Amino acid sequence: MNNNRHEPVTVIGLGRMGQALASAFLKAGTPTTVWNRTASRADQLVAEGARLAPSIGDALEASPLTIICVTDYQAVHELLGASDVDLDGTGLLNLTSGDSAQARNAAEWAEQRGARYLDGAIMAVPSAIGTSEAVILHSGPQSDFEAHKSTLDVLGTVTYLGADHGLASLYDVAGLAMMWSVLNAWLQGTALLRTAGVDAATYAPFAQQIAAGVATWLPGYAEQIDSDSFPAEVSALETDARAMAHLIEESEAVGVNAELPRLLKAMADRSIAAGHGGEQYPVLIEEFSKPRSRD
Amino acid sequence: MNNNRHEPVTVIGLGRMGQALASAFLKAGTPTTVWNRTASRADQLVAEGARLAPSIGDALEASPLTIICVTDYQAVHELLGASDVDLDGTGLLNLTSGDSAQARNAAEWAEQRGARYLDGAIMAVPSAIGTSEAVILHSGPQSDFEAHKSTLDVLGTVTYLGADHGLASLYDVAGLAMMWSVLNAWLQGTALLRTAGVDAATYAPFAQQIAAGVATWLPGYAEQIDSDSFPAEVSALETDARAMAHLIEESEAVGVNAELPRLLKAMADRSIAAGHGGEQYPVLIEEFSKPRSRD
Ligand SMILES: NC(=O)c1ccc[n+]([C@@H]2O[C@H](COP(=O)([O-])OP(=O)(O)OC[C@H]3O[C@@H](n4cnc5c(N)ncnc54)[C@H](OP(=O)(O)O)[C@@H]3O)[C@@H](O)[C@H]2O)c1
Ligand SMILES: NC(=O)c1ccc[n+]([C@@H]2O[C@H](COP(=O)([O-])OP(=O)(O)OC[C@H]3O[C@@H](n4cnc5c(N)ncnc54)[C@H](OP(=O)(O)O)[C@@H]3O)[C@@H](O)[C@H]2O)c1
Repeated sequence: MNNNRHEPVTVIGLGRMGQALASAFLKAGTPTTVWNRTASRADQLVAEGARLAPSIGDALEASPLTIICVTDYQAVHELLGASDVDLDGTGLLNLTSGDSAQARNAAEWAEQRGARYLDGAIMAVPSAIGTSEAVILHSGPQSDFEAHKSTLDVLGTVTYLGADHGLASLYDVAGLAMMWSVLNAWLQGTALLRTAGVDAATYAPFAQQIAAGVATWLPGYAEQIDSDSFPAEVSALETDARAMAHLIEESEAVGVNAELPRLLKAMADRSIAAGHGGEQYPVLIEEFSKPRSRD
Repeated sequence: MNNNRHEPVTVIGLGRMGQALASAFLKAGTPTTVWNRTASRADQLVAEGARLAPSIGDALEASPLTIICVTDYQAVHELLGASDVDLDGTGLLNLTSGDSAQARNAAEWAEQRGARYLDGAIMAVPSAIGTSEAVILHSGPQSDFEAHKSTLDVLGTVTYLGADHGLASLYDVAGLAMMWSVLNAWLQGTALLRTAGVDAATYAPFAQQIAAGVATWLPGYAEQIDSDSFPAEVSALETDARAMAHLIEESEAVGVNAELPRLLKAMADRSIAAGHGGEQYPVLIEEFSKPRSRD
């Protein structure tokens, strides 16, 4: 038996996600202390072998690593900022969802109080916790991550991103943007094909193949961005924009929503207007990197 | 030697794409007749062994299959509708880009004149023609496609979609929507991560993994659409919408363009307003299937 795997852990916050985290630790045989504002939510976990801490202070002292997973960062600050809570010498991993600025602020706040602080983001639903499907992102000091990695491994696919505490939430939302974009593009195609009587199941494998195929281009396209040079090796943005016009026309002609196609074309058109029509698609990074007010 | 592969073929239209098609046939040893409005664009192909037809009529008679690949459907009608052109008994494959209605109209028009007509769409750039990277979609009578499949195989990955002549252009634009959506989501993420000093090459493998992973969900999600039933087995749309708000806030906070996140949320919000907040993401098909005027 691996000694590290049995280092005790504390979970604060026993909502749907916190319960799933604590339950995965218990199933793996990790000694688990829990605490929740509403104590009754610990009942099931206690039946599974968890120890309910009488106070947050006790919960923090019980284990070298305390995971906190509550609604938002405001709840984190309310809990850990209470006058009777001493963070000095504690090891914290905050898996509460928030943005990169909140993560960096919380890190500074906790470190000033003597805590070792890691921030994280859970790219999974509670039912996936404890399986490799559950991707959990971590950022903060690498040595702290490595000290607890074997404890965390039982939760799913556990990844370290870098020292900047904001990275976990940035990767999280970036990954979600990819998820919804693939789904929406698939829905756009499904809506188009249904006008010709093609069912969703018939179209899906084609969409899957295109998405997976295009995904393989990303590392190569990334080199263009990092070198800030966008030669039209495969095709020029103005050629793409003409095909985008076809997509808009086709969507409108068959009576399908054209907002997604119109946004694709609007961004390409702005880049062409800025003089990039003869360059390759990743030159659009300049448009994505610019804030734009709501019109 | 396979007899079918050496059935002669004619290519009408020798722009960048038509030249690539004719050149791939010549490299494969297919007897190739060509014709172009501007005859000089055939010079290089004639040097490679093509036969330049003196007229369109001669070009059509020279082979059991004539591929036409010109700028647009109007050019197709101008060429094939000329008073001295007899389509009776010809075999046509139109690889000109257009929409599904243009394809269906051209099919009806050509069939009334006694032609066997297939429509197609090329999902590739000219330099990929002749490699398996070049996906070429076909729709129309299956027997006509099968009669010429071995001739066409030398062009790339040759696919048959169904009898409706509009299918090739519908799959084409649907596939392009997926391509640009994956690229834009990746650019959104890249722009977000660059604000934390993460270069595009570091982020790209993560984006690739998410895109390919989400793609594998599509066949399962398609079953929800085909059965018109969207139980929230994994997560509910209103949970997604809350995370979309995080994506918008994060993009705005770090000074990155938020148009893509705002469109994602606007569509989800409309579906929630229509009462689908407790259902799963593919319920959005109802929003995608509805035309919406530009606001
Ligand atoms: N559920 C998911 O699918 C999912 C997926 C990825 C990430 N996440 C993230 O995980 C975190 C927790 O989500 P959840 O689904 O577990 O939420 P939840 O079921 O609504 O539970 C919320 C938890 O936060 C506690 N809490 C809220 N405000 C508090 C306060 N002011 N003081 C003390 N405790 C407070 C609640 O305590 P009480 O029990 O006393 O109310 C409860 O333990 C969120 O940041 C969420 O975005 C969730
Ligand atoms: N290039 C690509 O990357 C690509 C990729 C996928 C699909 N496609 C599609 O393939 C088709 C051809 O594209 P391309 O790149 O080859 O275009 P191109 O290089 O601009 O060539 C256009 C061709 O159309 C001919 N043409 C145009 N109007 C005509 C008319 N009224 N009468 C007779 N001939 C006419 C031109 O003849 P002249 O030489 O006499 O002007 C030339 O052969 C388009 O539908 C395009 O969307 C292209």
